[in-house]
Amino acid sequence: MPGYTLTTEVGRPYGETVEAVRAALAGQGFGVLTEIDLKTVLAAKLGVDVPAQVILGACRPPLAYRALQADPSIAAMLPCNVVVRETGTASCVVEAFDPDMMAELNNAPELRSVAQEAKQRLTAALAAVSEETR
Amino acid sequence: MPGYTLTTEVGRPYGETVEAVRAALAGQGFGVLTEIDLKTVLAAKLGVDVPAQVILGACRPPLAYRALQADPSIAAMLPCNVVVRETGTASCVVEAFDPDMMAELNNAPELRSVAQEAKQRLTAALAAVSEETR
Repeated sequence: MPGYTLTTEVGRPYGETVEAVRAALAGQGFGVLTEIDLKTVLAAKLGVDVPAQVILGACRPPLAYRALQADPSIAAMLPCNVVVRETGTASCVVEAFDPDMMAELNNAPELRSVAQEAKQRLTAALAAVSEETR
Repeated sequence: MPGYTLTTEVGRPYGETVEAVRAALAGQGFGVLTEIDLKTVLAAKLGVDVPAQVILGACRPPLAYRALQADPSIAAMLPCNVVVRETGTASCVVEAFDPDMMAELNNAPELRSVAQEAKQRLTAALAAVSEETR
């Protein structure tokens, strides 16, 4: 399967996992600028049922600023989405959009180092959430 | 330069353009689920000055649902960002993340048709905004 996300599985209930992800993102300097409760949106608009999941729009301002300096169009790929999806009563998947994809779709060399730092920080945040459950 | 956005230039002031983009997205069935005033965020967090710009998170629920059915991980690429950036006192650039990139990064065949419809609708929305200024 495609490798456009960083993924980890977490053995905790959904609500707890969402809070742990927020804390882990904050620990790596990411603020959460947007939040979409996808289950609620799709139930309201279409009457369909999908697993509980939230899309958190994570932004570390110094990285966002460096990315914009390299290429103003990169705003269309900000913020970095981190999704928490319920997979069972005490299990979730956490998936972040892999910042490497940003550099993949864009040739500006400065974006490589921005993406690299973003990826390191998101990987550390996901590892922190995953560690806590052991 | 990279082709990961759909782009149009608009000969109107920033505030008017943002409103025209909202109306054009609504006309194509996209709701705006998130909104980031990037200039304000970066000024507040870093004290830096970037052009006025807003990232609108556009979502057409039936398309989002079809995408999720094809691949739950696609949530990390939702919603579709549409950016309005001021380029002068009466000029803006409007850039949407090209939905083709979604299909580019993901092999699920059903995503191709979802991306195609999303792209048609976003292209029509951008054309509508651009037309109004002539």
